[in-house]
Amino acid sequence: MRTIEIFDSTLRDGAQGEGISFSVSDKLTIVKTLDAFGVDYIEAGNPGSNPKDIEFFQRAATLALRSARLCAFGSTCRKQSAPEEDANVLSLLTANTPAVAIFGKTWDLHVTEVLGTTLAENLRLVRDTLRFFKDHGKEVIFDAEHFFDGYLHNPQYAMQVLAAAQQAGADVLCLCDTNGGVLPDEIGRIVGTVCAAFPDTRVGIHCHNDSGCAVASSLVALRAGAAHVQGTFTGIGERCGNAELSTIIPGIQLKLGMACKGDLADLRHTATKLTELSNMTMPTNKPYVGASAFAHKGGMHIDGVSKLSRSFEHVSPEAVGNERRFLMSEVSGRTTVLAKLASVAPELTKDSPQVKRIVDRLKELEHQGFQFEAADASFELMVLKALDRFAPHFSLSMYRISGEYPFPDGEQSASAMLSIQVDGTQETTAAMGNGPVHALDTALRKALSVFYPEVAKVRLTDYKVRVLTGQEATASTVRVLIESSDGDTSWTTVGVSTDIIAASWQALTDSIEYILHQKEAHATCQ
Amino acid sequence: MRTIEIFDSTLRDGAQGEGISFSVSDKLTIVKTLDAFGVDYIEAGNPGSNPKDIEFFQRAATLALRSARLCAFGSTCRKQSAPEEDANVLSLLTANTPAVAIFGKTWDLHVTEVLGTTLAENLRLVRDTLRFFKDHGKEVIFDAEHFFDGYLHNPQYAMQVLAAAQQAGADVLCLCDTNGGVLPDEIGRIVGTVCAAFPDTRVGIHCHNDSGCAVASSLVALRAGAAHVQGTFTGIGERCGNAELSTIIPGIQLKLGMACKGDLADLRHTATKLTELSNMTMPTNKPYVGASAFAHKGGMHIDGVSKLSRSFEHVSPEAVGNERRFLMSEVSGRTTVLAKLASVAPELTKDSPQVKRIVDRLKELEHQGFQFEAADASFELMVLKALDRFAPHFSLSMYRISGEYPFPDGEQSASAMLSIQVDGTQETTAAMGNGPVHALDTALRKALSVFYPEVAKVRLTDYKVRVLTGQEATASTVRVLIESSDGDTSWTTVGVSTDIIAASWQALTDSIEYILHQKEAHATCQ
Repeated sequence: MRTIEIFDSTLRDGAQGEGISFSVSDKLTIVKTLDAFGVDYIEAGNPGSNPKDIEFFQRAATLALRSARLCAFGSTCRKQSAPEEDANVLSLLTANTPAVAIFGKTWDLHVTEVLGTTLAENLRLVRDTLRFFKDHGKEVIFDAEHFFDGYLHNPQYAMQVLAAAQQAGADVLCLCDTNGGVLPDEIGRIVGTVCAAFPDTRVGIHCHNDSGCAVASSLVALRAGAAHVQGTFTGIGERCGNAELSTIIPGIQLKLGMACKGDLADLRHTATKLTELSNMTMPTNKPYVGASAFAHKGGMHIDGVSKLSRSFEHVSPEAVGNERRFLMSEVSGRTTVLAKLASVAPELTKDSPQVKRIVDRLKELEHQGFQFEAADASFELMVLKALDRFAPHFSLSMYRISGEYPFPDGEQSASAMLSIQVDGTQETTAAMGNGPVHALDTALRKALSVFYPEVAKVRLTDYKVRVLTGQEATASTVRVLIESSDGDTSWTTVGVSTDIIAASWQALTDSIEYILHQKEAHATCQ
Repeated sequence: MRTIEIFDSTLRDGAQGEGISFSVSDKLTIVKTLDAFGVDYIEAGNPGSNPKDIEFFQRAATLALRSARLCAFGSTCRKQSAPEEDANVLSLLTANTPAVAIFGKTWDLHVTEVLGTTLAENLRLVRDTLRFFKDHGKEVIFDAEHFFDGYLHNPQYAMQVLAAAQQAGADVLCLCDTNGGVLPDEIGRIVGTVCAAFPDTRVGIHCHNDSGCAVASSLVALRAGAAHVQGTFTGIGERCGNAELSTIIPGIQLKLGMACKGDLADLRHTATKLTELSNMTMPTNKPYVGASAFAHKGGMHIDGVSKLSRSFEHVSPEAVGNERRFLMSEVSGRTTVLAKLASVAPELTKDSPQVKRIVDRLKELEHQGFQFEAADASFELMVLKALDRFAPHFSLSMYRISGEYPFPDGEQSASAMLSIQVDGTQETTAAMGNGPVHALDTALRKALSVFYPEVAKVRLTDYKVRVLTGQEATASTVRVLIESSDGDTSWTTVGVSTDIIAASWQALTDSIEYILHQKEAHATCQ
């Protein structure tokens, strides 16, 4: 069985997508998420381009990756110069990654009109730059920019560039449809020709979705002989985006009959998590991983699937960590919920009345805009509540937040007062903050630490806001996700409301309740 | 040049998409919109299935269509029965459309396991039903359900069904990848075989996107000889949706070198209108028609496109009614800024000292977390300020927002009071809202409409919040994007602060300042 290498460029090409901007901590979480799912390469930016990337590579070097190699990205050296005197080339070495991806021109038009040099000089740039990195012990992936446009325009020259890269020691010749304009049948034919011409070198494929064919072109290229595929997990990228690895990976394993890294049972979870980390919304109709991907509405389809699942499903939803939904009849995913329940309430079976109660409650909450995919702690609390196994550690009597302009105290523009009850004892306090949610969070932890000193150790490590219904603008529903840590573990909680303060309050409350419950459960066991 | 027929199923297969529900009046508007753009067939539902469809067909019959033929949809008659005694078959006649699309089984497994009859009886159903409609003078499109799965499982039988349909007089043999699981290279091969076997009958293609290949498979099928393509304009449909005609039509005209109906200059407008009518949001990265489809962010790409547009664009944005955009980002240089300045201050050149001042200011603001790529109105105001061409229309003296729990008034959980000055006159007012930003927005427009009545027409149409630095959690910097509309045009503004209220205030202020400035500039010109 042929094995295909998976190369994810979420942090490099993905970051070129409109509206995408990753913090250093986002990037580290994305690396860990991709590595846990299983990919071969994680391309993680250009260390020469900005200080954020330098900090990222320093911190990334300390991660113990299970399956992925990190890869820095840059271009061939500048015309009329040598690699060893090119600051951008040298910056790639400082990233200290085992692999580098170097892009070079292969379309003659680009060489003369955009780069403004001769065809011969461009061959030298490719040769010298790649040799420089091979001499420094790097695995070198050559990204042949605009290869298909170049090949269609001047096939001899495009092939000469590949030959120069191969002679310089490139480990992978990756053919890029940079403009996304070439159709799959042409891609397949050209990849076949290249594979025949370079039988001893791995050939890769890198597609963009401008013609709506990026996934198809990638799969066709693999059938034609390519052994390495580049894309971004969720498809983010410049213009219309890159080929989606979340669609290509199941295509490879379930349809092409080839092997590649990536645990399909974790596919949907990984795609959802990466979408959240990019602050995007997952399209419900996304192949394999979307909420509607196995949702049947037509009566005849529901009837067919009930008789024989493959009558209207091209693959099994369980195979990709998704679930079947019947939209009309409201018969839904008990199996999935059961899988999630395994750690919280292992004694429950599919037919337990409690499972039905939990599924019903989950549907109701999801309808309101809750999403538990990235909020395991809130999911666990919801289950405990549904099973009557939850006793709250505190209750809110009232809060009042206020913000004003001009700012009363430098950055501290807001204040919050609140009153909570623990076992009949009231505690009222107040705090300032540089925003109403910050003030409320500070006041809550101040009040609670009177009763539960361990709460003082809890820190909020991430806070995300998502507006759900754009239509009504500032009157929209918002979903708040909060990640907390006590230094040992971290957990995520969710809140939904038309009021951002109320949504944040729910997520804050869940965060504190979760860790108090955990500590109690552990204490009981010991 | 080969001509391809375009068959739109937005009102039938599209209506099977999750969350899609059309009123009769929506349906009539969709028919008019598709007809104005130009398609050959509009499939508009099953008159036997519900009373809404019967009303629709009665009203649709009165429309004077320019280019499209209406088509009713139904199945072959029931087993062991004749078409003339089947209520569903008869209901198709009442729709009174020139064409009908009839689906029948071609996968032996479906015949025996789902329909529960013999292979011979299924051939009779196809033959008798199609002949019935031909005898009633209809143009008949035969939808060969699950044709590709059927062909891969039992090619002899799948071809026998097509032969039965052709002998009964089918005008089109449309091959459906109903489950969306077959890959483009197989689709191409099988379509080629069918076209060779039925050289005198139009062959059609109908793909679903479950493998992420619906558009590619459709285009490959057309190259392999199909002459009729089915899909939904925006790609809506059951599960992962149908092949998107908005991507296929430009593919046919600009890439396959074939002809088809559809005015490409109207492509983006039509796709946007149909998306709105479906109450969906157009993905920004949608091929050809998305807002980001021709948006360039990478500095090298912007430089390349400025030198030679086809260096990074597969087709011209104008050809599909879209436009090129240069996104402002950490990597933008003077070329990008200059391109954006063209409409605001066309007299500036790359070497003007003002351009340097603007670029420096831009970098400073981006460093603070501003992002102008999606906030053209704020960018324009920033430029006017840097050029000393901006005089504010109002100034803020103070605001005070408060939120409380328990909610004082049902959903209205927050209130805002503020005081502004216009030409030395103070206006102080207050408003409630279901969140502090909503309250502040309402109060601001209330205060301003005293001086500028036109502000009452402005509506916020979208509100997005992005947390920038996850590390500090609720003390993070937030970026707020606000989209506003006055009914004629819409514009987007941005604000950044550690305080979400302050960030929202900046974006709200920019929104109002922008439209007041625009109206003034227009008044001066007239």
